[in-house]
This record gives sequence, C-alpha cells and structure tokens, in this order.
Amino acid sequence: MKILVVNPNTSKSMTEAIDRAARHQASPGTEIVTLHAKYGAEGIDSTFAGLLSAVAVMDLVSTYPDPYDAVVTAGFGEPGREGVQEIAHAPVFDIAECAAHVAQLIGRRYSVVTTLSRSTAAIEDRLAVAGLAARCASVRAAGLDTVEVDRDPVRARREILAQARAAVAQDRAEVVCLGCSGMTGLADEIAAELGVPVVDGIAAGVALAEAVVRMGLSTSRICTYAAPGETAVKGWPLSDLVQFLGIRHPC
Amino acid sequence: MKILVVNPNTSKSMTEAIDRAARHQASPGTEIVTLHAKYGAEGIDSTFAGLLSAVAVMDLVSTYPDPYDAVVTAGFGEPGREGVQEIAHAPVFDIAECAAHVAQLIGRRYSVVTTLSRSTAAIEDRLAVAGLAARCASVRAAGLDTVEVDRDPVRARREILAQARAAVAQDRAEVVCLGCSGMTGLADEIAAELGVPVVDGIAAGVALAEAVVRMGLSTSRICTYAAPGETAVKGWPLSDLVQFLGIRHPC
Amino acid sequence: MKILVVNPNTSKSMTEAIDRAARHQASPGTEIVTLHAKYGAEGIDSTFAGLLSAVAVMDLVSTYPDPYDAVVTAGFGEPGREGVQEIAHAPVFDIAECAAHVAQLIGRRYSVVTTLSRSTAAIEDRLAVAGLAARCASVRAAGLDTVEVDRDPVRARREILAQARAAVAQDRAEVVCLGCSGMTGLADEIAAELGVPVVDGIAAGVALAEAVVRMGLSTSRICTYAAPGETAVKGWPLSDLVQFLGIRHPC
Amino acid sequence: MKILVVNPNTSKSMTEAIDRAARHQASPGTEIVTLHAKYGAEGIDSTFAGLLSAVAVMDLVSTYPDPYDAVVTAGFGEPGREGVQEIAHAPVFDIAECAAHVAQLIGRRYSVVTTLSRSTAAIEDRLAVAGLAARCASVRAAGLDTVEVDRDPVRARREILAQARAAVAQDRAEVVCLGCSGMTGLADEIAAELGVPVVDGIAAGVALAEAVVRMGLSTSRICTYAAPGETAVKGWPLSDLVQFLGIRHPC
Amino acid sequence: MKILVVNPNTSKSMTEAIDRAARHQASPGTEIVTLHAKYGAEGIDSTFAGLLSAVAVMDLVSTYPDPYDAVVTAGFGEPGREGVQEIAHAPVFDIAECAAHVAQLIGRRYSVVTTLSRSTAAIEDRLAVAGLAARCASVRAAGLDTVEVDRDPVRARREILAQARAAVAQDRAEVVCLGCSGMTGLADEIAAELGVPVVDGIAAGVALAEAVVRMGLSTSRICTYAAPGETAVKGWPLSDLVQFLGIRHPC
Amino acid sequence: MKILVVNPNTSKSMTEAIDRAARHQASPGTEIVTLHAKYGAEGIDSTFAGLLSAVAVMDLVSTYPDPYDAVVTAGFGEPGREGVQEIAHAPVFDIAECAAHVAQLIGRRYSVVTTLSRSTAAIEDRLAVAGLAARCASVRAAGLDTVEVDRDPVRARREILAQARAAVAQDRAEVVCLGCSGMTGLADEIAAELGVPVVDGIAAGVALAEAVVRMGLSTSRICTYAAPGETAVKGWPLSDLVQFLGIRHPC
Repeated sequence: MKILVVNPNTSKSMTEAIDRAARHQASPGTEIVTLHAKYGAEGIDSTFAGLLSAVAVMDLVSTYPDPYDAVVTAGFGEPGREGVQEIAHAPVFDIAECAAHVAQLIGRRYSVVTTLSRSTAAIEDRLAVAGLAARCASVRAAGLDTVEVDRDPVRARREILAQARAAVAQDRAEVVCLGCSGMTGLADEIAAELGVPVVDGIAAGVALAEAVVRMGLSTSRICTYAAPGETAVKGWPLSDLVQFLGIRHPC
Repeated sequence: MKILVVNPNTSKSMTEAIDRAARHQASPGTEIVTLHAKYGAEGIDSTFAGLLSAVAVMDLVSTYPDPYDAVVTAGFGEPGREGVQEIAHAPVFDIAECAAHVAQLIGRRYSVVTTLSRSTAAIEDRLAVAGLAARCASVRAAGLDTVEVDRDPVRARREILAQARAAVAQDRAEVVCLGCSGMTGLADEIAAELGVPVVDGIAAGVALAEAVVRMGLSTSRICTYAAPGETAVKGWPLSDLVQFLGIRHPC
Repeated sequence: MKILVVNPNTSKSMTEAIDRAARHQASPGTEIVTLHAKYGAEGIDSTFAGLLSAVAVMDLVSTYPDPYDAVVTAGFGEPGREGVQEIAHAPVFDIAECAAHVAQLIGRRYSVVTTLSRSTAAIEDRLAVAGLAARCASVRAAGLDTVEVDRDPVRARREILAQARAAVAQDRAEVVCLGCSGMTGLADEIAAELGVPVVDGIAAGVALAEAVVRMGLSTSRICTYAAPGETAVKGWPLSDLVQFLGIRHPC
Repeated sequence: MKILVVNPNTSKSMTEAIDRAARHQASPGTEIVTLHAKYGAEGIDSTFAGLLSAVAVMDLVSTYPDPYDAVVTAGFGEPGREGVQEIAHAPVFDIAECAAHVAQLIGRRYSVVTTLSRSTAAIEDRLAVAGLAARCASVRAAGLDTVEVDRDPVRARREILAQARAAVAQDRAEVVCLGCSGMTGLADEIAAELGVPVVDGIAAGVALAEAVVRMGLSTSRICTYAAPGETAVKGWPLSDLVQFLGIRHPC
Repeated sequence: MKILVVNPNTSKSMTEAIDRAARHQASPGTEIVTLHAKYGAEGIDSTFAGLLSAVAVMDLVSTYPDPYDAVVTAGFGEPGREGVQEIAHAPVFDIAECAAHVAQLIGRRYSVVTTLSRSTAAIEDRLAVAGLAARCASVRAAGLDTVEVDRDPVRARREILAQARAAVAQDRAEVVCLGCSGMTGLADEIAAELGVPVVDGIAAGVALAEAVVRMGLSTSRICTYAAPGETAVKGWPLSDLVQFLGIRHPC
Repeated sequence: MKILVVNPNTSKSMTEAIDRAARHQASPGTEIVTLHAKYGAEGIDSTFAGLLSAVAVMDLVSTYPDPYDAVVTAGFGEPGREGVQEIAHAPVFDIAECAAHVAQLIGRRYSVVTTLSRSTAAIEDRLAVAGLAARCASVRAAGLDTVEVDRDPVRARREILAQARAAVAQDRAEVVCLGCSGMTGLADEIAAELGVPVVDGIAAGVALAEAVVRMGLSTSRICTYAAPGETAVKGWPLSDLVQFLGIRHPC
C-alpha cells in the first residue's frame, strides 16, 4: 500500500518531521511518500494561508504522476479536504478529523491543543463540518505559531503541556489531540505526564488510511465528492508557474 | 495482535458468519477469537434482549482467561460498550460506532439499514451518545428480525437493498452501513448495485481495532472508563450458573 | 394505585431509605412496594454495575407475581429504562428523568449533583437520550461514591451542598436535582440553605407515576417499547440461579 | 388543593369544555376554578391574539382575590407562561409543555396536532424554549381555526384524526398530543383508533400541577422568575377598563 | 423612507435617547418617527412587563394613522416581534436580532451585555427563536436595571465595560452588543477601550430596516406572519382606555 | 461609499450580470466596482473549483490598488470568506450569508435553490459555519450547473421555480434565496409566482454592506480575523503569473 502524505506548508523541517512520524506509524508493507507545498506559507497560521495551502495540496495531488492508495493531508484545521477528495484517485484522510475519530474511539471527550488562538476557530469549524464536534471538550491554544513550535521545542513542549493539563482538569477531556503537525513527537511524553492517551494526527491519519484501504473502500462518488467534471479551468495547475516567483509577506 | 470478537447473541450460525467476516478483514498476523453469549437471546430485537446481551458480553470478556489486544463487540446498536470498556484490559470497538466512523471518513452523510423499526431508536441513541449523529442521514428498517435475516437471506437481501436504495435516493445518504451482524456478506453486492460504498460493521470493527492497537493507544482510564473498582458485586459472573438454565420466552 | 419502586442496587439501607421517601411522597390510596436487586452491586458507581443492575431490575419486574399500576426505577443515571418499559405491564418512571421533568416545570435551568465524576457521563447520556438535556446547566459530582453517601451522611451533606451552591452560583442553575437515591432526605435542607427548589428523584418518580396513572395513560406499544415478543432467551430469569452465587469484586 | 385553570380566550363554550376536562382529571380533594380572559380574542389563531391573551391571563391571575395552589394556563402554544410565573403565588403549568412532558414519559417521540399551519411555529417555539423539542417528531395542523374546531366537531374530529394518523405513520410519533384546548374530549377516541396514547393538555396540566404541589415544590424565585419588583407600571390592571370597550376586528 | 421606532417602555428620557440614536444612524432621506408605549412599565425588567409592552407596541403600530416603510421595535429581548409582524403594514426589525445579525457579519462570536441577570434568559430565548444563538458566546448582565442604567450613567458605564471586557477575555467574544436601549451612546467608548466592534441595537435596527426596504422586500405573509384575520377581539385597542388609568406597582 | 464586488468565477457574462444586479441595488452615492477571478473555473460546481476561486478572490482583493469601503464576495456557498476578511481593509460580505440574514429578517424559515445537488453540501456548511443554519428549511438543487443556468435561462427559470415551489409547499419555507449569482434577475418573477419574498444574494450583499459601513463598523481584528502577519509566503500573489497559463480541464 502506498500513502501520499501531503504537508500543506513549505517548511522543510516540518516536512521531515511529518515524514518520520508517518513512517513510524506505517505497517510493514506500507510505503510512505511525503510531499510538501510548492507555494504558500512556511507555517499556516491564518485562513489566508490555509486556503492557499488547500490549492497547493490539490496541485500536488492532481499532478502526482504515479498510483497511490490513500492521501493523508497533514494540516490540522486547514481547509481543503473536500476538494482533495474530489480530485484524488483514492480515499483522503484529514489529520484533524482522523485524530478526533481515534480520540472518540478511546475516550468520552477529547480536547485539541493547537498553536495560536486565532487558529482555534478553523479547527472548530473543521470538526463541526466533519460531524465530530459533539465530543470535543475544547480547542486550546498554546500561544506559539507554527514556525515557533518548530523552532523552539522546549517552550513549545512546556506551553502545550500546560494547555493539555488544563483541558483534562477544567474541560473534562479524557483524550488530548495534538493540533499541529509540528507537535508530532510530543505525544508519548505528554501522555506519560498526564495519564491520558494523546493522539498524534499524522499517526492517526496513516492508521485510518491503512484501515480503510484494507477494507477495500474509497470515497463515495455519488454526489458531493464526485470528480469536478469537464469545467474549463484557467491557470491550473498553478505549480507550473510558481518557480518564477519569489517570496513576500502578505501584510 | 489478538482481537476478541464478541457476538452478543447466542446464535451459532451468526457467530460463524461474524467469525468469517472478522477473519476476512484481519491483516496477516492478526488472530481472531470469536466468542458468543452464553445466555440471552438468539437474535437481539429489543432493549430487553440488548441489556441482557450487554451483561453476557461483559461476562465473556471478564472471564476470558488469556491476553488480548482489542475487543470488538459485534452487536449493532446494542447497549454495553461503556461497560465493556471499563472491564476490558484493551481498547473496545463497537461495530455500530466503527461503521459510522468509517462511513464519515469516505462520504458526506451515511444511512444505516437495520432489521426492525423498533430497533432504530437504539441505534440512533448509540450513535448520538458516541457523538456520531451529525452526519447520520437516517436509520432505516428492512422489516425482518435478526433471526429472519439469518434464515431467509433471499428476502433479507431484497428488503435491505430496497431500504439502502431509498436511503440514497430520499435521505441523501452517500454511504450505507449494514446495521446487523447477520447482514455481513451483503456489502459488496449492495455496493455494486447502488454505486455507493457499503460498510460492514464487523470489518470496520476489526480494521479500526488494528489501527488503534498499532498506534499504541488504549482506552482512557482517567475518569469515565476507569475500572469499576472494589465494589462488592453479588452474582458475578453469571455465566457460572447459566449451564443449569433452560430457555424460555420473555412474553 | 400500586407502585413498584425498584432499587437497582443490593443495599438494604438504601432500599429502606428509598422506601421511606416513596411512602412519604405517595398520596393516600397509593400503595408502595419497594424491591431491590437480587444480584449486582451494593452501590452502582460504574457502567459495568449499571448494566448488571438493569438486568436485575428487569428480572424483578418480570417475575413480580401480582398486578401493579406503575414502576419507578430508582437508579439515577443507570441504564435500563427502555428495557423495563418493554416488559412491564404498566408505565415506567426513571427517577433521573422524573427529577429533570419536575425541575423544568419550576425553573429555567437545573443542575444535578451526583456522587463521583465518573458517573456524570451516564447521567448526561440518560438526560440526552430522554430529550431532557437542553435545560440541564451541569451535572456535578460530590466526590463520594454511592456507599460512602450512605455511610457518611455528614460528609455527604457537606460536599453535596458545596456542589449545589456552585451549580447555582457558577452554572446559573435555578433548581437542583439530587442525583443519587442515597441523597434522598437532603432535599429540604439544601433548599433552605440555597433558596432554590431541590428535587428528590424518588419523590418525582412517585409523583409523576401517580399523575400519569391518574390520566389513564401507559407506555406506547406501537414501536420502540413493544413487548419483546417470542424470541428464545437462554438463562432467563437469572434470579432463579443467583442464590447459588457468592460475592466477588470485579477487578 | 385549589387549581386555577385559565382559558386565555374569551369563548364561553371553550371555557366550559376546559372546565369539564379539568374537573374530569382532578383527584378527589382538588378544587378546580376555571377563569377566562376578559379581553382579547374568542379563539387565538395569531401571535397578535396570543400576546394579548398573555396579558389577559396575567391580569386574571394577578387580580384573583383568593389563595390557590397552582395555575394551569390553558392555551396551547400561547406566549406568556414566564410572565405568569413571575406574578403568580404558586407554580404555573402551561398545557403545551405539560402535554409534552407526559408524552416523553410514555413514548419515544411525540407529535402535536393543532389547528392552523400558522400556529405551528408558536408551538415549536414554546417547546424549544421549554427544552422539550428534542423528542418532538412534528407539529401538524388540522386546517381549522380554534373557533371552527369548537363549532364543527365532526369535521374537526376527521381532520385531527387524519393528521394524527400521518404523524404516527410518517413522522414516527409514538404518542400524539392534542394541541388546542378545544380538542379536549377527543383523546380517547383517537387513541382507540390509532393504537397510541393520546395526551390532552388540560388533563396533563392538572395532573402535573397536582404532582408538583404534592411534592411541596414551587417556582424557583432566585433569578429568572423572581417577582417583577417595584417597577412603576402604567395602566395595570387593564381589566379595570375593559368593561367600557366593544368588540372589533384587528384587520 | 419613513421608519417607526417604537420604544416599548414609557420612559420619556429613554424615548429621547432612542430617538437621537435612530436619527444619528438614519441615512439622508430617512424619516424617523419615535413612539413610546402608552401603558406598561417605565423600564422593562421582567417578562411580566415585557408581555405588557408587547401589547403596547402592537397597540401603537396598529393605531398609527399614517403610512410607514418599516418598524423598529426598540426593546432588547422583549417578546412581541412576531405579533407586530402580523399587524404591521411593513417589515419589522427587533433590535436584539438586528444587533446579532450585524455582529455575526463582522466577527466570529458575539456577546450581549444587558441589565439584570433575570433578563438574560429572555434575550437568550429571543436569539434562539430567531435562529441566532449559534454564534452567541454569552449574554452577560451589568447588574443595574433599565431605569438605573438611565439614571446613573457613570456606574452603568463602568459595569457594562467590565462585563464587555469579561466577554472578550473569558467567553472569546469578538464583537459586543449593547443589550438595552438605555445603553445607546456607549458603543464608541467601549469599542475604543476594548479594541472590538461594539454594536448598538438601535443603529442596527435602523440600518437593517433601510437595507431591507431598499431591497424592496417585506415580511412573508404566506403562513406564520399572515395578518390575524377577522377574529373577534374584545377590548382592542386598549389605548383608548388607558388615559383613565393611574400608575401602580405590580407586587 | 465604494464597494468591491468580486465574482469568484472567470465568466464574463456572469460578471456583467452581477455588476448589473449590484448597481441596481446600490444606493445613490454608492460606487460599485465589479471584479472577476483571473484564474480558476468559468462556473464553480465543485469544492476543487471553489477553493481555487477563494485564492483568486483573495488575490484580487489583496492586489486591488485603491481604497474601498466594503467587499462583497459573489459566490454562493464558495469557501473563502474568512480568508478575505483577514486581508481586506474593510468589512466583507458573503452573498450566501447575506441572503440568509435578510431571509431570517422577513420570514420564519427560508430555503435556498441552487444549481447542482453536489453543491448543496457546501452551502449547508457555509450557513452552518456562519451560525445561520437553524432557520434553513432546505437547500434544493435545480439540476443545472452554473454555466447552464447562464446559457439556458428558460430551462433554468423553469427548474428553479419548480424547486422554489417545492420548498414552500413541502419544506415550509416562507422565503426563498436564489443560490447562485447566475440566478440574479429571477427574484421578482419567482416572488410574483409563489407569493413569498425571494432574496437575491447580490442585492443582499450590497444592502448589508451599505448598512454596516453606514454604522461605522468593520471586521473585528482581535483574534480570528486579524491580519495574517509577517509569515513568509512563497508564490504570492499568484496573479502575477497566470497570464502565462492556458486553460485545461481538471479531470
């Protein structure tokens, strides 16, 4: 089985961390191919960057030349899963949703610990749209952005642990989900500290992808996630052009 | 990995069908041990029988002498998952919940086709309590009880297919879940007929059990699903006695 | 009118307290017959024990030899009401639901104060399944288990009062429900202290049973709560055998 | 025990029917005093008329000279219960809410059959505000206004029965509530025809009033339903003046 | 365009403040006519007073002799909007609903700061009935009644600001709505202090009235808000008589 | 006041229709500037095309050189509003949300009539995420895609009218929203035919933009919709490159 794991941001170090986490979870016989966005933000901390990353992820999936059995989209709360489902030739697994599915299987209520306060709304929306909000106790923010989580692991660990502890003590969470690909690797440590299961989204995405592929199932094509059809689309794929572009800041 | 699959009813033929479905889904290296209730109903078509089966399942799990890595409870809509979670030494997977989890991963809305109208409420409650109701389009009844599904597969197939077709056409379901262990085996046929993915609960239970065990996770013990503790319990396990009992009808 | 009040646990002292509370509430002309579980836990502080008690209660009701007009099941948050409804020959009143019904009639929002944190989920589920969650402000735990509430009334009173006070001050509850049969008798005292109505479940169960019986109504038999039918059931009733059993601990 | 039953409309024949229904339900020892609005509409088929009736009911209750133990407001879906609760010296029972409470106690889902389509929204709102919407399967309209129900009982019976039958067959209602005081008296006939319990609001109001009064409970005064206080109110009570007014049509 | 702005209370100073706020918001070419209740409370701090005001507002609108293009009802959380919609010849705008509509357009979640705790329930109900509860973070009370807000602007400002600050910091509100006509005028000051948009209900009502009128739209008359029809109504309009009445206190 | 109206698709004829509708609604003194996507689909009938359009719309807004007072995004159910809110210098109005806001102001329940079944999910999600789902009776599909609506107005009119009629008759809608910019212009005709108000999204967007701008309000910047900050973004704006691209089909 071959799983495409797609990092929606452009960071090399986060792509490597995601790749390691995916390989660590993969069963023997599962091949992991980790891709990363060719354009967009280094760390996704806004809906602006999230929407851009959704297009970058669709771009990667639609131009990937070889067969694959599943796609794992490695953005926690980023938009785009439904679009990838339309164009991928195999089932698609959003890591935020997969983490929540796994959390619901092993505990009564779960919380998510993510990066910035401004990102909690997008995660709440993603869980609600996926029908997974009912058992969500809270989405809490550690107060670091995505790049800071990557660059300052000591502070990140401390703040994430503090929010996870508050989720258990105040929000009655019985499982904690790590709400950022950059947090991958902290799961065992936080679980040991708090005495609750901690779910890493990358691992959940790979594990559920394997499960669904082994069941012989794929995305329903009967209506919402049917292929887009023969609509004329101007400027696609955008990746053909991006090599000419430099980098700038949105504000 | 060793998975206990527990049939909550006492039917030998349904136990065998469940065992076959579980083995068919299991990955190489996964051992399936299928147990069945020692007391209770041959087919569970009431909450009366469902509650009795919940105790019978807890009885089987708590007296099982050897180690195991996961438990799959093979009743669709039967009560009891939370109780098994408390006493099992490994994570527990309810097939109704697992079917819904898988359905949500591959389609926008799902329907369940079950046996009798009177059983739809219990399934709706199970999905709601598990936080999985938001994407449930409908729970439909084929109009046969559990034993009839087992004994008259031609009529069962026809009625189940009719309800699955109505779920897609009228309720906008994009995935269908087969809501009775006795329906296991019909999934491929109905999927081919309707052009939507069809999820078998036993397969979903085994696949998600493998996924969660491979993630190294188990039930959160911090609060709701902690072990029951040292409470004095009279008459437990009931299975020690049931050999002396005959069979009778509840009404 | 004759009301069966069924204590789902095996405790003699709690059965007596329940009997007193039921007789205290009963109108002249209402006969109270209080039964207690023949097997299961002395105090129900887990879903394991709750499911076992559900079967024990169905056992008592189905083997009760004489006519009766209503059944009150005296477990707060225990599963099983739907099963008893199927097999009883008269309407069935769950005390958690009845307390919530009465609370909604006299106040805007209500809270429940129960025993242990681990039991709050079961009460929340019971209220939600009964369609009574919308006006529930909180379910709070006093931190004592059922047996401790029975044996240490001074500490129980203090902790229950503290949680009831917090429910009013922090959760905006305007009515408090006592969420454990063992708390029966504290209602007047807490009401006097806090200045809000306090609802005792046993009293609510008896009062609503009288009301519905006087209306000439009983359980709808048209679908969900129809009698279980002629299904073969092995090992029923379990009570025939339990006399041979000793007592042991589940873990 | 003395119960004030307040008909919110000005119709003499409906007041008499309400009085009969209330007396029929009342236990020995319960005194029924039935009042009717001194101003407002003969039959309430709009929110305009409903709001006017809410004031007329408050007027009756606040000027009633003698003690009483409970108030039953006999409008099905009319606004005003919360206002009466503030000024009454005893607990207040809205018949729409009481019918729903009783229905939830004896069946899984209930429907209401009322008069006109335009009135269904007000009933849905009343049930939602009272936290009783979760188990409401539908609110259906018979297509006659309140006065027509009173004057043409043959047609009313036929149309109400047709909607009740549809509620059971199509909406999965297991209990039917009669959603208009003028329908009182049809309950037994429709129940016999359809094989489901049928709840009359007046009977439910009286029965629950007796239940709550016997529990020694009354409206929580701690916040929402506290007495209005010493606010200056111009023109109150309006009933002092209405004797001088004639009758006219609002449009 | 001519907009009737109707103050549901009888206070002269609040009527003037409302009139100023409405004129301040009105576009050039919009004529504002501000009316006030002829009977009822000086400040509405109970549902009793709210229901009386609903009738007083309907009275004003139905007896207003000249044409108008829209009605703005200037009570925050008062009942009655649906009744006014039935009898008005133009669309009707409730200021609580309008404030919430505007808040949802400019922020993720909003809070309301109102007068007394006892009034929060009515505002919550109004928002829920209008389908606007999903993005409401909280309804908070400043602890002053309506008349006190009017008479002690310094204390009112301080307490309202404190609650608005708490709504932002603790409830994650991103927009604050001022939940009382008497608070009109504080919006800019609080917005400057807290750095979030603050919505005044009167301004929102006038702005949305203008928007809808400019779209050429009015209330749907097809069902719920159709005119009340030819029902006989006794004692209407009440305003004909109220000139004879003095003032008294309700309790 | 200057309003940017942004058509998310690349169709010239739809851009012209949108521009006409916006100018028709605009008050004297309001300047309308209508832009259209520089890349992406001619008609948006998939989430793939919707996400691409979200980026194209952000691109247009972020590179627009002159000041403006509001942005109206003219895609009905397209993703992206939150991203535009982050980068625009003025408040942003999504036409699907604006249509629903207006519909709720003038009727009890509303339905949306859109193009294809596959697009209903995206509209339902948009309304739910915006907190506007509670009063949505249904989202119905006319069975034509966006381009067909534009090219075959006779068939479009017939099918849209049929669905609008069904929404009123079967789903109890009291207001109909036209769920596609290409339907603009049909509102009056359908309203006349059905006797209910019909809301055009472009008109609603312009009217509410004017209302909010006149209130002096703009997007809350305190958290969710703050500007994206100084994140490095590769390949932005994409529009610099798209001139080099041709057109192709996504599948």
